[in-house]
Amino acid sequence: MYENDEKYMSAALLEAEKAGPEVYPNPKVGAIIVFNGEIISRGHTQEYGGDHAEVVAIKNLNKKYKNCTLFVTLEPCAHKGKTGACTDLIDNKIFKRVVIANLEINPKAGGGAKLISEKGISITEGVCSQNAKKINKRFFTFYEKKRPYVILKIASTLNGFIAEKDGQSKWITNEKSRSSSYQMRANCDAIMVGTNTIINDNPSLTSHGLGKKDPKIILIDLKNKLDNKANVFKHNPIVFSNDILSLNHSKNIEIILKKLFDMSFQSLFVEGGGKTLSRFIDTNLFDELHIYYAPKLTASGKPLYDGLKKINDTLDLHLDKIEQFDNDIKITYLKKEHVYRNN
Amino acid sequence: MYENDEKYMSAALLEAEKAGPEVYPNPKVGAIIVFNGEIISRGHTQEYGGDHAEVVAIKNLNKKYKNCTLFVTLEPCAHKGKTGACTDLIDNKIFKRVVIANLEINPKAGGGAKLISEKGISITEGVCSQNAKKINKRFFTFYEKKRPYVILKIASTLNGFIAEKDGQSKWITNEKSRSSSYQMRANCDAIMVGTNTIINDNPSLTSHGLGKKDPKIILIDLKNKLDNKANVFKHNPIVFSNDILSLNHSKNIEIILKKLFDMSFQSLFVEGGGKTLSRFIDTNLFDELHIYYAPKLTASGKPLYDGLKKINDTLDLHLDKIEQFDNDIKITYLKKEHVYRNN
Repeated sequence: MYENDEKYMSAALLEAEKAGPEVYPNPKVGAIIVFNGEIISRGHTQEYGGDHAEVVAIKNLNKKYKNCTLFVTLEPCAHKGKTGACTDLIDNKIFKRVVIANLEINPKAGGGAKLISEKGISITEGVCSQNAKKINKRFFTFYEKKRPYVILKIASTLNGFIAEKDGQSKWITNEKSRSSSYQMRANCDAIMVGTNTIINDNPSLTSHGLGKKDPKIILIDLKNKLDNKANVFKHNPIVFSNDILSLNHSKNIEIILKKLFDMSFQSLFVEGGGKTLSRFIDTNLFDELHIYYAPKLTASGKPLYDGLKKINDTLDLHLDKIEQFDNDIKITYLKKEHVYRNN
Repeated sequence: MYENDEKYMSAALLEAEKAGPEVYPNPKVGAIIVFNGEIISRGHTQEYGGDHAEVVAIKNLNKKYKNCTLFVTLEPCAHKGKTGACTDLIDNKIFKRVVIANLEINPKAGGGAKLISEKGISITEGVCSQNAKKINKRFFTFYEKKRPYVILKIASTLNGFIAEKDGQSKWITNEKSRSSSYQMRANCDAIMVGTNTIINDNPSLTSHGLGKKDPKIILIDLKNKLDNKANVFKHNPIVFSNDILSLNHSKNIEIILKKLFDMSFQSLFVEGGGKTLSRFIDTNLFDELHIYYAPKLTASGKPLYDGLKKINDTLDLHLDKIEQFDNDIKITYLKKEHVYRNN
């Protein structure tokens, strides 16, 4: 690693952050080209199907340079997908060295560093790798754990009830809290709720027009209890039933997440109810916990949690963010493994 | 009311806010003197036993003025307490008008406006009264409701449990959260917990050296269950027992608060347990709710609330403040009646 590698990679990370959700399902990548200690070109991933970051930066070069260094936040791809392989454009007449934050984790796109190295270009890998992972934590989790990045959402009274005993729950949090939750739906590939939530609340599970897209609806129907006149059936949901599920609820979570990985859903938003959320918590198969509290109390009702944890068991949660919606509050917890150290 | 009365009273309120906790049990008061449209003197309440705000301002006047206006955030006192009556110093040779935010609510000190008026000085009352009450909300609540200002404190898991079933609860929140709570103890006149909290936790209920004073300890012992070897008995607590209490728990809260009013405790910090807190919530005899959440879950245990409220019952709570202590959070709710409008 050279003295200024981290400085230049930090500039490439700033480029990566300019990429928006339109790059999806590709990760957000940034690239810069350095000549003689000066940044002479920059680029970030374009809308899906468009140029990758390093291609943008190379095309931006306005005259013939030699002995340049390319800094890129993810290993350049070696496969011809929607665009040509990025490695083809990395020319040893222009570049003497390529610095990479993280190796590609998508097996279809990997192998670029080896190809570049075979051209006689020197490779440095692992610069600012933690910060680079942070920008694409859903993407990395998806490929590393072979499951979607799972976000659990709870709307609760101050004392942990998500509904009255009869299932009434629609109005615990206020309108602003609910809008914030609808926006999260648009921000995820798929949304899942348990059977009882469909029966009790009959939700639409759309983003209510508050985002660019609606998530794919994922349902569990172990005992054929769902009525296909329920609102969710207007949106062509994926229903998991006893053909692949069993009465082992924790095992079912694993099976469903495996299927969703195979179907390329990078993120899953789980909105309840208490039983479904508890299974995700107890199997530790989640990445974020979003909890909304309304200033209400009830001595009995449906609890947000009915799992196996005890008070002194750790949930490994890091408090990431607090938001206020009038008198409601939203707390965002990240699993500690997603708190990337600065490097 | 004159055109600039609110402007000058706002300046007097800024003075009031300069008074610190050392003025207690007096309220924080500010005064300014205006001559010919110019503020020529200022003052605020001094340490208990020292000069009141208007006295400071009058003593600060550096030469003989006539036709001045005095703006004071609370009616000047008419009684000779620790100091002389303030009204004695308000001279009709100097002052033509006195503007007051709120009339004195302590019956022992009231009546000043009438005495001033009898000197031929004109009186305007009610300017910025809501903002002036906000600065002394404990003081006003104490005299208006004839009970201490009550702050309920809860430390809970995310799902509303304050202890395991066997009573184990000491370590739900982290050290920083607990320190914040010890500071609140020092900031209140009295602290109260229920019988079971003493038996299960054996707390000291002091401020652990994190404040200038320890609150007076108030205990309930309906059935003579408390062991006088418990830590709290080192601090000479006040114990309410069945000589004045009955099995009507809600009525007991009223009786205790009335006694504490008679004993001049302006504020009471209630630290639990769930049953005690629930009685205060259900009788609506509280002013603030401080709730700490640690990122923990348990499916059963001692609940923070076991009262009568239903999900759709309003608690009339306003979210006043959110604080973060590492991965714990503290939410401060005020009863909406304490959210004073700007005026």
